[in-house]
Amino acid sequence: MQRWKLTIEYHGAAYSGWQRQSEAPSVQQRIEEALHAFCQQELRLFVAGRTDAGVHAHGQVAHVDIEYGDRPLTGYDLTNALNFYLRDSGIAILQAEPVGEDFHARYGAKDKLYTYRILNRVAMPAIEQDRVWHVRKPLDPTLMQEGAKHLLGRHDFTTFRAIGCQANSPIRTLDRLDIEIVELGVGRELRVHTEARSFLHHQVRNMVGALALVGEGKWQPDDVRTALEARDRTKGPATAPADGLSLMAVRY
Amino acid sequence: MQRWKLTIEYHGAAYSGWQRQSEAPSVQQRIEEALHAFCQQELRLFVAGRTDAGVHAHGQVAHVDIEYGDRPLTGYDLTNALNFYLRDSGIAILQAEPVGEDFHARYGAKDKLYTYRILNRVAMPAIEQDRVWHVRKPLDPTLMQEGAKHLLGRHDFTTFRAIGCQANSPIRTLDRLDIEIVELGVGRELRVHTEARSFLHHQVRNMVGALALVGEGKWQPDDVRTALEARDRTKGPATAPADGLSLMAVRY
Repeated sequence: MQRWKLTIEYHGAAYSGWQRQSEAPSVQQRIEEALHAFCQQELRLFVAGRTDAGVHAHGQVAHVDIEYGDRPLTGYDLTNALNFYLRDSGIAILQAEPVGEDFHARYGAKDKLYTYRILNRVAMPAIEQDRVWHVRKPLDPTLMQEGAKHLLGRHDFTTFRAIGCQANSPIRTLDRLDIEIVELGVGRELRVHTEARSFLHHQVRNMVGALALVGEGKWQPDDVRTALEARDRTKGPATAPADGLSLMAVRY
Repeated sequence: MQRWKLTIEYHGAAYSGWQRQSEAPSVQQRIEEALHAFCQQELRLFVAGRTDAGVHAHGQVAHVDIEYGDRPLTGYDLTNALNFYLRDSGIAILQAEPVGEDFHARYGAKDKLYTYRILNRVAMPAIEQDRVWHVRKPLDPTLMQEGAKHLLGRHDFTTFRAIGCQANSPIRTLDRLDIEIVELGVGRELRVHTEARSFLHHQVRNMVGALALVGEGKWQPDDVRTALEARDRTKGPATAPADGLSLMAVRY
């Protein structure tokens, strides 16, 4: 038996999210089918962090244990074999690395980096639809950054977690929440980069929802702190759409 | 009559290129249909530079003359009206600006900037397919940049023009040909940025084809100069795929 760490890219639009579901195709199911096609074994993937429907990944991580006989298997071969079965699926295995049995994709994760892309211009996206949140009103990134600082550090994020979130505790430590400005020929893109050991369900999209309210001038930067301190989801902003969100990397 | 300068974004994959054709849908036709739907006039677009099937634009420019009566028309209104008719077309009008009758999208263009994206890693793209050229073998960007310098300046680019190119002269002046490295979690993307007042048909894609041969080690950097000096298309490289190419901006 060999444990493999898989680094995975996928386009979220075609899937109901990472996790297997009975009704709709998921990323997990599609990769487990590729594993079955290659190994003739029913294998189960353990993922660093589930993503919702529509959310993309440039560096999701999962692990899987593969039994095999005499034939040695390299990471390069496993990558290519899985990608053969995943062609035209909107999923690609970027890397397969042999790891020890003490490696666990979920419990070993020290840090996750998410990036949320806001296309801030009048015209709708012609190329990046499904990849960005299109906001027509001009957003002020300086105010957004000022609002963001209230969320850094260790807090009770009840205001920013989905009502159905199943985490035991609403306490999380946010290590980064930065707004990057990418100037386009017309308009610009704002990229919100955020890092933490783990996030609550919808936490990133709810934080981005709050920052957008600040950027539009509907909230003052201090209103972010007020909302946080209320520890009440109903005092929080609307959830930003899934399309703009990508899981960029998981560190171990 | 008012002349309008339109700045346009489009996804090349769904179209046979910019120019109207009888058999296949083109970007020009689609926008002229939107103009007709809005103005009830048969209007003709003049473009800065035609693009081939599959080539994208982030900042194409075209002009059009619109007759209208008493109703004043702002650039903002024209942008929104055309985008209404262009929704879900893979085309967006980024900006419409009123310009004088001496403005000409093609003849007035002083500089065009193209970017060619090469995804350089083993795994196929799951998100950016149709947007990049996927090259599995590792490319050496230092060698590519060394090869690129031979193409800068004023040259006879016969080796790098399509056989069917209709330009009168094969002489062009290349002002920029840079390789930018974008590190990804696994692998990297190489972006070739190039600028000139005008380019020959397939010139950018043929130059990129040569740089890829250099990056792979099949050509030495000096072979680019040898090919250029041969003034013979058959001494040139294969044409890089359309997918990786985008017209980024036109300057006046």
